[in-house]
Amino acid sequence: MTAQDAAPLPPAYGALEALFTRLNALDNALGILHWDQETTMPEGATDGRAGALAGLEVLRHELLCDPATADHLAAADAEAAALTPWQQANLKEMHRLHAHAAAVPADLVGRAAHAQTVTEVAWRAARRDNDFAGLLPRLTEVFEIAAETARIKGEALGLAPYDAWLDTFEAGLASADIDPVFDALAAFLPDFTQAVVAAQAAETPPLRPEGPFPIDRQRALGQACMTAAGFDFTRGRLDVSTHPFCGGADDDVRITTRYDEADFTSALMGVLHETGHALYEQGRPRDWQTQPVGASRGMAVHESQSLILEMQACRSPEFLTFASGEMRRSFAAATDTTTAAWTPDNLHRLYTRVAPGLIRVDADEVTYPAHIILRYRLERALLAGDLKMADLPGAWTDGMRELLGVVPPDDTTGCLQDIHWPGGAWGYFPTYTLGAMIAAQLFAAATAAEPDIRPGLARGDFTPLVDWLRRRVHGRGCLLSWRDLLVEATGRPLDPAVFMAHLRTRYLERSD
Amino acid sequence: MTAQDAAPLPPAYGALEALFTRLNALDNALGILHWDQETTMPEGATDGRAGALAGLEVLRHELLCDPATADHLAAADAEAAALTPWQQANLKEMHRLHAHAAAVPADLVGRAAHAQTVTEVAWRAARRDNDFAGLLPRLTEVFEIAAETARIKGEALGLAPYDAWLDTFEAGLASADIDPVFDALAAFLPDFTQAVVAAQAAETPPLRPEGPFPIDRQRALGQACMTAAGFDFTRGRLDVSTHPFCGGADDDVRITTRYDEADFTSALMGVLHETGHALYEQGRPRDWQTQPVGASRGMAVHESQSLILEMQACRSPEFLTFASGEMRRSFAAATDTTTAAWTPDNLHRLYTRVAPGLIRVDADEVTYPAHIILRYRLERALLAGDLKMADLPGAWTDGMRELLGVVPPDDTTGCLQDIHWPGGAWGYFPTYTLGAMIAAQLFAAATAAEPDIRPGLARGDFTPLVDWLRRRVHGRGCLLSWRDLLVEATGRPLDPAVFMAHLRTRYLERSD
Repeated sequence: MTAQDAAPLPPAYGALEALFTRLNALDNALGILHWDQETTMPEGATDGRAGALAGLEVLRHELLCDPATADHLAAADAEAAALTPWQQANLKEMHRLHAHAAAVPADLVGRAAHAQTVTEVAWRAARRDNDFAGLLPRLTEVFEIAAETARIKGEALGLAPYDAWLDTFEAGLASADIDPVFDALAAFLPDFTQAVVAAQAAETPPLRPEGPFPIDRQRALGQACMTAAGFDFTRGRLDVSTHPFCGGADDDVRITTRYDEADFTSALMGVLHETGHALYEQGRPRDWQTQPVGASRGMAVHESQSLILEMQACRSPEFLTFASGEMRRSFAAATDTTTAAWTPDNLHRLYTRVAPGLIRVDADEVTYPAHIILRYRLERALLAGDLKMADLPGAWTDGMRELLGVVPPDDTTGCLQDIHWPGGAWGYFPTYTLGAMIAAQLFAAATAAEPDIRPGLARGDFTPLVDWLRRRVHGRGCLLSWRDLLVEATGRPLDPAVFMAHLRTRYLERSD
Repeated sequence: MTAQDAAPLPPAYGALEALFTRLNALDNALGILHWDQETTMPEGATDGRAGALAGLEVLRHELLCDPATADHLAAADAEAAALTPWQQANLKEMHRLHAHAAAVPADLVGRAAHAQTVTEVAWRAARRDNDFAGLLPRLTEVFEIAAETARIKGEALGLAPYDAWLDTFEAGLASADIDPVFDALAAFLPDFTQAVVAAQAAETPPLRPEGPFPIDRQRALGQACMTAAGFDFTRGRLDVSTHPFCGGADDDVRITTRYDEADFTSALMGVLHETGHALYEQGRPRDWQTQPVGASRGMAVHESQSLILEMQACRSPEFLTFASGEMRRSFAAATDTTTAAWTPDNLHRLYTRVAPGLIRVDADEVTYPAHIILRYRLERALLAGDLKMADLPGAWTDGMRELLGVVPPDDTTGCLQDIHWPGGAWGYFPTYTLGAMIAAQLFAAATAAEPDIRPGLARGDFTPLVDWLRRRVHGRGCLLSWRDLLVEATGRPLDPAVFMAHLRTRYLERSD
């Protein structure tokens, strides 16, 4: 049963499908405009683009919150018995999206979109110039709009303000889900990290391939790995931006990376990460592409798909066997790097090296959660009023010292490093570490169910893995909640023990 | 007096300004999405993009045609005495845009946008494969939607259907304007062309610089000429597309070209042409940027700005003196071209060479109008029902033989060469030759008024010319009709004799 072939649709539900098809057209337009802003737009267009994005967001909001929508939703509930399970799930998602939108007045939506666009651009300059003070007024404005939104939504949805932020990014996710698993991680990681660092100090230090690595070859290697992983270039692109992301539109999934001639790893691993996001988007149920139930689940599940590729699959000894040959072919002629640097074993030691550092996006798999726990604590404190925005740099430094034992020398490598807060994505960070845990749990279940997944990776054949993900995750859209999706795919709810077991196996036993 | 500082605006007029600011945001979004489609979008995104564009067009249409708009327009007329001249002109443009939009039902707008997007993409393949038959069903659909639109608009606006098409592209333009000037040209050109071809056969044949001309140097030369002409790269870009165009958004004016390593002239002259369009867009009155009166006048005036740059200024002996040095610096080291090929005199003979040919965009200044007269006749015949779409290739061949004395060997170089009809731009072609005549008239007036314009071009300094255009054309927005703009700037209405005098001076007297 598809969105198209159900004939005839119950009238109220049918009107809602038509509405959401229109909203989908706006979302696709917004997706391309955001991509363009990050990759292509000239600097002088900032204000005009902010106006265009805000204009579209307000239109989207007005369409969704038109009084007729609430009437249709109520009437469609009465039609539910005539709906298929996918249609019922679609209706449920429609309710959720409407409730989120209707809670927030249109002028606040427009102010948010405008402030975010302007602040994102200002953030780029502030990060470059280490100028937190210069960004402070705009960052404060973006935060206050987000806080007001959290309070308004929380009241309307019966959620605490912070949970209203979380619910925006992953339906049903609450701090009650996060606190126990973050507590478990916070208890586990410090000793574990020390043990890993000590063990690695006793290993042969990995050789680091030495560049320069020409950018055109880095791009070709990234594209080759994307193709191997199943990325469809007739329905997507690879481009360059300051902050890598996966965006675009239906059938037009665009990922970005940034290249460094001295180090190809950062771009390559970034490409593999974004490819995981992109495979999710390209694998969504095509028959439901314009409808809410055809969307990807929230950002925690989304992050699990990027990390199952980057961390679970592509840092495995099997994949690095394949990658070793690809890297040598790409770069051996252009560099003086010795053959020993390109062995799978060396690459595995290199790509599983653990060292506490300043930059979240450069962090290894073991220390990454500490960066997230810091941001989670800070944004909760800001929202609760326990921390003033002007005091963020100091609180950041204190948190880094406590959680990671390192101190940033400036705000560029401190609280200005991420685009999320300037861009308005408050309450987003926890999804990264939840995603890492979900990825570990899915990969354990997948490799247990499909014995050819690991041998496939060694051949550069991702089909066994991706087929499993298509069936269990990508093709499910929003049919299930994130909890039910995980239970259906792995047989149990989120369990941080699986992630910890993965870390132990890889970093202490050295057998993954 | 600006759109912002008038305090307070009369209420109905104020509501209209707010509405058109919202529409402007949609237009900016559409502009970037169209640019992306031509330059960047992956093939598989065609349907999704068509849906997004159609969705935005329908939204735009619904906003403009909301019943409140008609009420506001009527009420604003009663406020006219309190409005400034710019506000009054703005209100007049609002009426015009509303009348055009309100005449056409929303579903027809959506069908048109969707069919045009899909047909444009199909046209690319059909042109490549010389497959008119394959394109015929889609081309027919696009035409029939356009014809239906012409009839509906014509009835609502009291215009003949073809004039309804024309009015879409240049307010107030009618076939009654076109017929006498096209008749004058059709009477003048055949003998004149023969005389020029004969005279040029007796000249020293120009030397053609021989490539390859590396694309990065071609791009750099184009950018250097754009900068010399006053293009602002902080508010615009130069990119690549199959069919060059000027598009984008406010403060984000994007032109495209296509490069051929064997011939840099086509890209360079194309860049100068599109730069003329871009200077118009970048020079519009900033205080009125979001409002109809701040838009560029119609496409005939727009084309005059591209041709005043490409044809009037940049094929002049003065500019070619400057360009000679730039070209030599760009390419001399990379090619075997002899020094003699780079002299201003040789370049002038090369860039004013006349030869009847198959391809409109490659046509010289003298034979170009014949291409337009053919298309004008064909689209009038199609709309009148005197020509069936299936018979277009034959009618095209007959017309080429009659008007230009050449016959295309296939449809790729015949009726499939242009994007306009597949893209839905029926009634657009006449604006090219009207633009050429307006350009000649404006350039004659400008050089008479500003004696430093020609010496400036020889130094690569476009400031005297562009300053005159800013005052007389760009900065006027839609304050005046195209007729009044021309009379104000040149002292008289459109006079084909000025264009013919320019052709005589340049091509027979060889003194321009």
